Amino acid sequence: MALLLDHQFKELPPDKAIDTKLFLEAVSHIPSFFDCLGSNVFSVIKSDINGNIMKIKGVYLKDPAKYITLQDIVEAEREAHPAEWPKVGATLALMWLKRGLRFIQILLQSLADGERDENNPNLIRVNVTKAYEEALKKYHGWIVQKIFHVALHAAPYKSNFLKALSKGEEVKEEDCLSNVRQFLVNYTATVDAIYEMYTHLNAELDYSV
Amino acid sequence: MALLLDHQFKELPPDKAIDTKLFLEAVSHIPSFFDCLGSNVFSVIKSDINGNIMKIKGVYLKDPAKYITLQDIVEAEREAHPAEWPKVGATLALMWLKRGLRFIQILLQSLADGERDENNPNLIRVNVTKAYEEALKKYHGWIVQKIFHVALHAAPYKSNFLKALSKGEEVKEEDCLSNVRQFLVNYTATVDAIYEMYTHLNAELDYSV
Ligand SMILES: CCCCCCCCCCCCC/C=C/[C@@H](O)[C@H](CO[C@@H]1O[C@H](CO)[C@H](O)[C@H](OS(=O)(=O)O)[C@H]1O)NC(=O)CCCCCCCCCCC
Ligand SMILES: CCCCCCCCCCCCC/C=C/[C@@H](O)[C@H](CO[C@@H]1O[C@H](CO)[C@H](O)[C@H](OS(=O)(=O)O)[C@H]1O)NC(=O)CCCCCCCCCCC
Repeated sequence: MALLLDHQFKELPPDKAIDTKLFLEAVSHIPSFFDCLGSNVFSVIKSDINGNIMKIKGVYLKDPAKYITLQDIVEAEREAHPAEWPKVGATLALMWLKRGLRFIQILLQSLADGERDENNPNLIRVNVTKAYEEALKKYHGWIVQKIFHVALHAAPYKSNFLKALSKGEEVKEEDCLSNVRQFLVNYTATVDAIYEMYTHLNAELDYSV
Repeated sequence: MALLLDHQFKELPPDKAIDTKLFLEAVSHIPSFFDCLGSNVFSVIKSDINGNIMKIKGVYLKDPAKYITLQDIVEAEREAHPAEWPKVGATLALMWLKRGLRFIQILLQSLADGERDENNPNLIRVNVTKAYEEALKKYHGWIVQKIFHVALHAAPYKSNFLKALSKGEEVKEEDCLSNVRQFLVNYTATVDAIYEMYTHLNAELDYSV
């Protein structure tokens, strides 16, 4: 479980403000999550998410002292680009990034909860589909939805996926899953906090691609 | 036809050596070709091709005086990485880039030649499919091939595509196509020369993704 657990998300403070620097550090390890899926088909998603992170980082680095929290960035952009906002800059990048993060969260949670297709216990399609339907589907037009269904066939077996999460180490499935549960605590809290911020600031859009 | 014709490829010298710097300048305008296809689905391909170009450019800029021609780069990498070559560095990037360039060439040539589906004269699916089958299909596994067939539904109407190639200017279809024919002269010669170089240096691979 090196991959995930070596890079735990930090516990949030009581006001749930997310420190930009710590967040960027933590999510920088997310793109390689898609390598665990084992097929080059997913490199496309990896670069989309990587692009989101780079966009946010680019804005942050322009003035780290001003952009201490993610909310500082979103509010500054609302001020600076009233006409386009929220479909602009790091606000847009974080809007999409949070959906990818939610996808991963629901997928891991579903595995940790033992949800499975009893007829195909070593497939993760039910878990991936659940994550897709809850996190992304409504933001995708029918062509991308159809592409998702084709890409689903490239999803790895559960045993291989868990092994990849543990970087090929010989970890027992149950130990791996308990590490996943541990990882999900701060991770889920962080993703939830970003969603709450978007609701609160009225920064969410529901156009589909 | 601003997009294409403003950035003609140069005529090759008699020995067909391709000047790296001029080539990189010319192909830098290729990624935006995929914007002409009109759907965000194709941004994925745009970034793949853009990645190829950046990889080659990165190698070139390390020693422009050494890498005057594309062949200089490919030969230097063969020397430097005998074990991995040709699946390495700019050699690999150019191997894939030339396939994307060939795809565009065949698509444009097919349109210029007036090939069409008589039942759907304003669709370009027959032209896109021809280009795909000749340039890329054999390098794609069944999942990516299936994704291609789904993505095909996002291809634009011919009239819109030609308009986009002309950057929305009101150019008559026949004028646009004659500009395309003009563009294809040096472009096709350049793509052919890269293919010949790969054959000649035994640098071609046929693994599929
Ligand atoms: C040769 C034949 C091939 C033919 C071509 C085939 C092309 C196939 C393309 C399929 C789509 C790939 C997924 C990418 C989708 C992306 O389009 C969306 C929106 O992407 C956002 O768009 C914004 C503008 O609207 C900004 O540019 C954002 O960029 S910005 O940073 O600049 O602001 C950008 O992230 N992101 C998404 O939907 C996010 C996806 C998250 C990850 C989902 C995990 C799913 C796992 C599935 C497992 C089975
Ligand atoms: C949320 C749900 C979404 C689920 C996920 C969906 C994902 C869909 C992914 C579909 C594939 C998209 C096309 C990209 C394919 C690429 O995989 C290939 C090989 O790409 C190469 O791979 C090498 C290593 O083997 C190096 O990394 C190269 O990189 S390197 O520079 O580092 O060396 C890289 O270009 N390029 C290709 O096949 C080239 C494609 C050229 C353009 C083709 C035009 C087709 C137009 C079609 C019009 C209808």
